[in-house]
Amino acid sequence: MQAQSRKWRLAKKSIGFVPTMGALHEGHLELVRACRKENDVTIASVYVNPLQFGPKEDFAKYPRTLEKDLKMLQGEKVNAVFTPSDKEMYPAGFSTSVEVKGPLMQGLCAPFRPGHFNGVATVVVKLLGAVMPDRLYLGQKDAQQLAVLRQVIKDLNMDIETISCPTVREHDGLAMSSRNQGLTLEGRKTAPALYKALKVGKSIVELGETQAEKVLEEIRKVIEDEKNVKIQYLEAVNPETLVPVTEIKPGTMIALATYLDNVRLIDNIVI
Amino acid sequence: MQAQSRKWRLAKKSIGFVPTMGALHEGHLELVRACRKENDVTIASVYVNPLQFGPKEDFAKYPRTLEKDLKMLQGEKVNAVFTPSDKEMYPAGFSTSVEVKGPLMQGLCAPFRPGHFNGVATVVVKLLGAVMPDRLYLGQKDAQQLAVLRQVIKDLNMDIETISCPTVREHDGLAMSSRNQGLTLEGRKTAPALYKALKVGKSIVELGETQAEKVLEEIRKVIEDEKNVKIQYLEAVNPETLVPVTEIKPGTMIALATYLDNVRLIDNIVI
Repeated sequence: MQAQSRKWRLAKKSIGFVPTMGALHEGHLELVRACRKENDVTIASVYVNPLQFGPKEDFAKYPRTLEKDLKMLQGEKVNAVFTPSDKEMYPAGFSTSVEVKGPLMQGLCAPFRPGHFNGVATVVVKLLGAVMPDRLYLGQKDAQQLAVLRQVIKDLNMDIETISCPTVREHDGLAMSSRNQGLTLEGRKTAPALYKALKVGKSIVELGETQAEKVLEEIRKVIEDEKNVKIQYLEAVNPETLVPVTEIKPGTMIALATYLDNVRLIDNIVI
Repeated sequence: MQAQSRKWRLAKKSIGFVPTMGALHEGHLELVRACRKENDVTIASVYVNPLQFGPKEDFAKYPRTLEKDLKMLQGEKVNAVFTPSDKEMYPAGFSTSVEVKGPLMQGLCAPFRPGHFNGVATVVVKLLGAVMPDRLYLGQKDAQQLAVLRQVIKDLNMDIETISCPTVREHDGLAMSSRNQGLTLEGRKTAPALYKALKVGKSIVELGETQAEKVLEEIRKVIEDEKNVKIQYLEAVNPETLVPVTEIKPGTMIALATYLDNVRLIDNIVI
């Protein structure tokens, strides 16, 4: 991968990169399309990174659909797909991790997924080393991942621009996610309630309520009207620093994680 | 720095990089000379990295001689010297560290300098991000630093070749180090005993003794014959993995750290 990217760089081609864990959906394809528009060369990766799964998480069950993924990426005319093996990524003697501390790691998913974002940071720094892109494309659905990786890239002085793309949704508003495949038929019917609730929150703010506590309470009610949904967190934060806010302003992000059918779903909305 | 390096890269110039903490001596200059021979462009950095000093270490007292350093580097015709400030390197909100675990961190200096090599790894990854070199030049005197940085560069898939250069010594054998400036006249007279002892060890091996324990014992005796020298560690290891060996073979490294006049001196020899 690196040898190929080096050739492209020497030929002065701009390189855009879309890292994925496969099980691709329209959300990924929109990242690829944004990438193709802005770069001479588009590279995607498909790699289910063991480092970012906790011991009780769904690494073994995570959907793996490489043949289908490659066809979809071919349909989008990517120039290369990087599909390293675990042995190539983490050979014997592998000793390094990229670790993130501070406010970015104090809220949202981080306390519930210890080690997750360090695993993400480590694999993405490795992928960036192999792919050597000018631009990195990430989805806004994984808002904490986006904020963490922006910080890591800045902190390590990497000469890479991070570009975020809007969350792609099903017709009923459910944020696209590879994990949606794990929902039962019943769960799939309930799942749009998350975004519906976030939109209720947004309209309450638009009607003049700016106290985060009250807005979050209304969102919570909408979700708790549904059966079988458990809220893990529901927070109003600054989308860059992820520091919680007490007053909601334009640009504030409201983010949540829930369990539905034992599937963990996250979503967010920016006011 | 990055903008300038980007121009050189686009012009297809090869870039070599010599990171330093200043207080330059012939050891650094030899790195610069090796770098100039092998690259179109030579960049040095002068930055005393606070992250790699422990709370009880000599960060405040570390010699700072920037004007003299710049003149020496100019004399060697480097193309650029990167001298970032602490604020540029670690601005408010800085959240990332590069951490190293495993056998590389279990012996030699690591147990006595907790956090040191993570600080080195973090600053060097940052410097490499800013300088974007093809080749990195490091001295063999800091053998554990060399082994750790080689591993980090490999682990993070950085497209950079690490080149190590032999330790440069004073006429009496003392390994050149910015810390030698801190020795008293008496201490300076004693200091060559370290390398003398390592050479005694080497000749014992050449005479047929391969048991590490016995060879280290002879080295210890030579050093302990001197007044005011305290050995912190004395080990025989594989120079790449830093795993201790019981039998000394060609390629085995014998490394030590001592305190002399409250100055910590390290040295090593490869059999």
